[in-house]
Amino acid sequence: MENHNRLILITNDDGIEAKGIRSLVEVGKEFGEVAVIAPTEAQSGMSHAITVKTPIRVYREHDFDPIVAYACNGTPVDCVKMAINRILPRRPDLILSGINHGGNSSSSVLYSGTMAAALEGCLNGIPSVGFSLLEFSNNADFSTAQYFARKIISNVIHHGLPKGVCLNVNIPYLPVEKIAGIKICRQNHGVWREEFEHRTDPSGFDYYWLTGTFEDLEPHAEETDEWALRNNYVAVVPVQFDFTAYQAIPILQKWNFNGQ
Amino acid sequence: MENHNRLILITNDDGIEAKGIRSLVEVGKEFGEVAVIAPTEAQSGMSHAITVKTPIRVYREHDFDPIVAYACNGTPVDCVKMAINRILPRRPDLILSGINHGGNSSSSVLYSGTMAAALEGCLNGIPSVGFSLLEFSNNADFSTAQYFARKIISNVIHHGLPKGVCLNVNIPYLPVEKIAGIKICRQNHGVWREEFEHRTDPSGFDYYWLTGTFEDLEPHAEETDEWALRNNYVAVVPVQFDFTAYQAIPILQKWNFNGQ
Repeated sequence: MENHNRLILITNDDGIEAKGIRSLVEVGKEFGEVAVIAPTEAQSGMSHAITVKTPIRVYREHDFDPIVAYACNGTPVDCVKMAINRILPRRPDLILSGINHGGNSSSSVLYSGTMAAALEGCLNGIPSVGFSLLEFSNNADFSTAQYFARKIISNVIHHGLPKGVCLNVNIPYLPVEKIAGIKICRQNHGVWREEFEHRTDPSGFDYYWLTGTFEDLEPHAEETDEWALRNNYVAVVPVQFDFTAYQAIPILQKWNFNGQ
Repeated sequence: MENHNRLILITNDDGIEAKGIRSLVEVGKEFGEVAVIAPTEAQSGMSHAITVKTPIRVYREHDFDPIVAYACNGTPVDCVKMAINRILPRRPDLILSGINHGGNSSSSVLYSGTMAAALEGCLNGIPSVGFSLLEFSNNADFSTAQYFARKIISNVIHHGLPKGVCLNVNIPYLPVEKIAGIKICRQNHGVWREEFEHRTDPSGFDYYWLTGTFEDLEPHAEETDEWALRNNYVAVVPVQFDFTAYQAIPILQKWNFNGQ
């Protein structure tokens, strides 16, 4: 695919040192000029958080040379804002986020810094895709994820994305030949249960670690991302920044706010 | 309205010391037994962030006595998870978040800790409402917000909320008699522009503050929350945790992932 001086911003939430972002940069370079602005440290679970109480700093990162790369002490969303408003010479044509070490399917999209970065790009009118691999280890093998990222980026560039829509791409941790295909899905409805582990510190005070197990509340719904991933598909969910529950508007309009 | 031993969890993102949460507790007490679990410090802009890298601690807060109240060193979403999983004797019947010092209309819903707490409740199947007042000052007058919070809570209890839906309520900073009414709206499409202020620290290094001005991209759309607020309405947006862009699914299903 031709380059056309396409400017591609790449960010993530695992931090600029992560293997996942380096794997995504390798793929991104095939499609245009890449610039990296990513958090200095891991920012997992930061969702769409922004930094308002402390100053934001950016540092030139030379081990990506000759690609322009900056580490930022803020969140993934701060990185996207900083890139668009301050660092890049012009608006990027495409934003890629990830490849995350660990899945972001189902309701994890609410907590995910990877997907928040993509949503922030989308809110700014820039085609954006978040990629996540279903494996947490630092040294995970990203070759399957790269193979499918290439196919998806190619399609995003060819077709564009519908207005107000970005993509949440989750990739099983399997060799390419074991992948059943790419499946367009909806977000699964699932929740986390028993979410805290209680411990006592050396001084005798209680503390808790956030933990828990995921429960799929609709395990037989074949149109969801969870089902697709369990069945070895790459799951692609179109995600929007308009959170309005349109179907609820006519219901609420019948409420009586004066009578009660 | 009768009490029925209703258990109401109240949280916020401005921290347990804020005037806004105390104003909401006053209203909540009219509808049931209230428990407060809120951040120890202000957590504005924390969105749906969760605390995974540091231990979570909770502290009994006695100045709400006899109401059960805890401060938590985590985010608003951590507070809801902690309340549901660890602190409360049973699942709450209702979750109220706020009253936020400052508005959370339009795309601010993405960044808002107030609304993330409500969404977390909703994800757990509990009717949840986030309230925000369009005034940032610590000592703001919450009497109008309390008046309309009362009407909205009353309706939520009477009608219930549709499955998977919580409410984002924004209240103009005006006397009750200047309010035009309660309007059910959709989320406005707007973005923040010129988002960073550059400064140099005493050592000569650059840093940035996140700032900027909001731009309404559809100022004439009368069905949006921004329009309602500008025209002195209390804006109520039904919000969902399913971020799927359903209209995009058939479009993406036509893409060719094998050919390119």
